[in-house]
Amino acid sequence: MTIIRKIALGGVALAMSAGAVFADGHLEGAVKARKGLMQLYGHNLGILGAMAKGEMEYNAETASAAAGNLMAYVQTNQGSLWPQGSDAGSMEGTRALAKMWETFPAVLENSKAMASSSVAMNAAAGNGLDALRGAIGDVGKACKGCHEAYRAPKK
Amino acid sequence: MTIIRKIALGGVALAMSAGAVFADGHLEGAVKARKGLMQLYGHNLGILGAMAKGEMEYNAETASAAAGNLMAYVQTNQGSLWPQGSDAGSMEGTRALAKMWETFPAVLENSKAMASSSVAMNAAAGNGLDALRGAIGDVGKACKGCHEAYRAPKK
Repeated sequence: MTIIRKIALGGVALAMSAGAVFADGHLEGAVKARKGLMQLYGHNLGILGAMAKGEMEYNAETASAAAGNLMAYVQTNQGSLWPQGSDAGSMEGTRALAKMWETFPAVLENSKAMASSSVAMNAAAGNGLDALRGAIGDVGKACKGCHEAYRAPKK
Repeated sequence: MTIIRKIALGGVALAMSAGAVFADGHLEGAVKARKGLMQLYGHNLGILGAMAKGEMEYNAETASAAAGNLMAYVQTNQGSLWPQGSDAGSMEGTRALAKMWETFPAVLENSKAMASSSVAMNAAAGNGLDALRGAIGDVGKACKGCHEAYRAPKK
């Protein structure tokens, strides 16, 4: 769990300090970039989900690639993507609630759940459809946990 | 160079077969996701570039995080992001030229240049501003190489 812990803590520590070091316009850039990251999460999880639901034929290589990607994205340092002031109450173009920056211990739990579930998915995805299906629930739960707690509903 | 080779080849091999396994609507999803990836490249390279140009104060930890992210993104398997038929001649919303799918050996060279330059940047970014500056040219060249060869100009 050391790597997961380091990722989660590293990301948050950087987020807390990022406001001070980035130039003007960095908030909009950060929002665009984190939306890009969410697209990539969704794209790769979409492949795994389609296989789990039988909408796409299971293929070990494609599943492994998608799971490996998801894990790699989750393990990047997200500090610069979530600068202070980039919440829905402070700017347009994001549904991220200010609450996210105010409740660090809880955010860390979400972030650890995402990290551990994507590591487990990466280990499972290439080992057959049953293994993939067994791992996908926890990934979905981790996504949902953060979205429900820290994202405003669509207008 | 083994990892870099594997990434480049793996990505292309999957791209060639992906058209057959993905459901309807996957082309639009793939384009959205690869635009997300380009946002993330740009965001992290933007941080490194701003430091190189003296527009942002050099910070070893922030530079390392950005370079580590860039390298991690580059090393993901991009096969599902570039399915056959997702070129500018076949659909809206992308400037990727069909030529990209028709000239695999050349694309592989670009992809390897991006991989090796981001690995070098990852090794350099935390070692001071001069090291960062020494590594950034090759990353920029790799970006530009692919954009110039395989991206239609803005309309």
